[in-house]
Amino acid sequence: MTLIIDCHGHYTTAPPAHDAWRQEQKAAFKAGAPVPAYPALSDDEIRDTLEANQIRLLKERGADMTIFSPRASAMAPHIGDESVALQWARVNNDLIARCAALYPDIFAPVCMLPQSPAADMQGSIAELQRCVDMGFIGCNLNPDPGGGHFKSPPLTDRFWYPFYEKMVALDVPAMIHVSGSCNPGLHATGAYYIAADTIAFMQLIEGDLFKDFPTLRFIIPHGGGAVPYHWGRYRGLADMLKKPDLAGHVMNNVFFDTCVYHQPGINLLADVIANKNILFGSEMVGAVRGIDPTTGHYFDDTKRYVDALNITPDAKHMIFEGNARRVFPRLDAQLKARGQ
Amino acid sequence: MTLIIDCHGHYTTAPPAHDAWRQEQKAAFKAGAPVPAYPALSDDEIRDTLEANQIRLLKERGADMTIFSPRASAMAPHIGDESVALQWARVNNDLIARCAALYPDIFAPVCMLPQSPAADMQGSIAELQRCVDMGFIGCNLNPDPGGGHFKSPPLTDRFWYPFYEKMVALDVPAMIHVSGSCNPGLHATGAYYIAADTIAFMQLIEGDLFKDFPTLRFIIPHGGGAVPYHWGRYRGLADMLKKPDLAGHVMNNVFFDTCVYHQPGINLLADVIANKNILFGSEMVGAVRGIDPTTGHYFDDTKRYVDALNITPDAKHMIFEGNARRVFPRLDAQLKARGQ
Repeated sequence: MTLIIDCHGHYTTAPPAHDAWRQEQKAAFKAGAPVPAYPALSDDEIRDTLEANQIRLLKERGADMTIFSPRASAMAPHIGDESVALQWARVNNDLIARCAALYPDIFAPVCMLPQSPAADMQGSIAELQRCVDMGFIGCNLNPDPGGGHFKSPPLTDRFWYPFYEKMVALDVPAMIHVSGSCNPGLHATGAYYIAADTIAFMQLIEGDLFKDFPTLRFIIPHGGGAVPYHWGRYRGLADMLKKPDLAGHVMNNVFFDTCVYHQPGINLLADVIANKNILFGSEMVGAVRGIDPTTGHYFDDTKRYVDALNITPDAKHMIFEGNARRVFPRLDAQLKARGQ
Repeated sequence: MTLIIDCHGHYTTAPPAHDAWRQEQKAAFKAGAPVPAYPALSDDEIRDTLEANQIRLLKERGADMTIFSPRASAMAPHIGDESVALQWARVNNDLIARCAALYPDIFAPVCMLPQSPAADMQGSIAELQRCVDMGFIGCNLNPDPGGGHFKSPPLTDRFWYPFYEKMVALDVPAMIHVSGSCNPGLHATGAYYIAADTIAFMQLIEGDLFKDFPTLRFIIPHGGGAVPYHWGRYRGLADMLKKPDLAGHVMNNVFFDTCVYHQPGINLLADVIANKNILFGSEMVGAVRGIDPTTGHYFDDTKRYVDALNITPDAKHMIFEGNARRVFPRLDAQLKARGQ
């Protein structure tokens, strides 16, 4: 019996009071006024937003649980300063902790980080520790906290090393995930996300990061951006850059989810990327919420596409469960503790 | 008999004196000194660089001709100012004109534009006219002349409209193509190109550009960036943005080349994108120059992948010849004038 683990879900349906506080927080920062108190949210309010959305869809689609993090497009680390980012990260992560406490069998918590364009990673290191102490199993790392102009150092730069040391010490992976775009030329979910995924992978090819951190693990979401489609280009570029074969150079450490919203894309992913590197994910409720008129099913019901793959049951088991348990050892430990 | 037209080739092998002049030009700009005279290049020098490279590979691979433009990564409009960009564009385009004059049956000329981050499109309009007067059939339009931080207005912005008016008046298409990256986080051919292709397509979805310019035509190179792999996402986003079906909204005006360097990628492209929107291209001699150890053939020998597609001979004819003649009417006229 396979546990169907969706590795990529965000709390895109948080109670309105949560988002209202964010507006007050931004206004207070602008006015130089004290930060308002975070509102009291009842368990029932939280339950309602989850039952009506993520949990309903999870059940309808036949999945069991979601690796769950704050809404990615609302992380917006380019807003305010580091103290604004830290307040926002804490209230979001605390809210995710409540979701996981209310439904421990359904939501495995992953944190956002208090990144800020001018900040180093010290605040993120502290917040990661705080969240792991609350039972979190991973984090979302934003490679471009500036919000759409790609001014941060590459992921292979030593700027990030103190944070990687902490990830390795805590044995948690990071999903590489940008946030909302403040660039009018970059639509968040249609351009910025996919571009950032692709850029991240190429940075990893150019560097030798995993020589320094052999156990560091990244999930590149949205099916790895453009990477599987251009797999020949990336193999060829690694060769031109005198790097080892991608299998040894990056693919012991990099994983792609299945947030690719049509069957031919998932077929390609499963065809060119090793089975051990693919984690089931849907990004539900997320970027694309409609029904595909060519199939009659939700675009983001990616379980259907994986179910339809012409691969062995064992290979499907790895995509749905086995790989997630390997990439997120703290999830595996929690599941084992529950007898799963 | 199908004419095999490669829609995407750059003069990446120009004589060293050409590149040396560029260095002198940059140094002169920096020093505030007069621009040095452009060197005299003999026809034989030009012939040698083409015969040993593009023409040799074209023949080896069984193609007939290439739609040929200046080296994309060297356009570098972020260097110097508009006058530097104009000098550089002119010498490059003049050199492409010489290639085409030496081998009129092999090279169909496409121009670069004297774009510059602070400039409007007036210089580009004049250069496009000058090049079309020399027999050029299209242009390469850079959506990010800043070189890797995506600060230009979206392609749907009125900033670009005067140039589009000129393109329509002259009935020439543009390949949307960025240049070298001045961003240490963005590898040119592995990250910047593919990201920019994807971003451009999403800009076109968000806007309504082709309502204003029903006959404007863009080629998005490198197989359309990430777009075919994420075709479900783009169809779903168009739906969420209340746009018409992509077939009518953008796909009467947007075309993808076949610069995707492995068989599964080309299979996906041909599977999800309408045949009329696919143009054979290889970007040879270009981004990836090695041999794929899994096939024993050059990564960028994309003709092999198209040959191997399980599609009708008519559909292959359109990819190799028919679509290029339709997208580049000035090429079609030149071919007809030669009895082809």
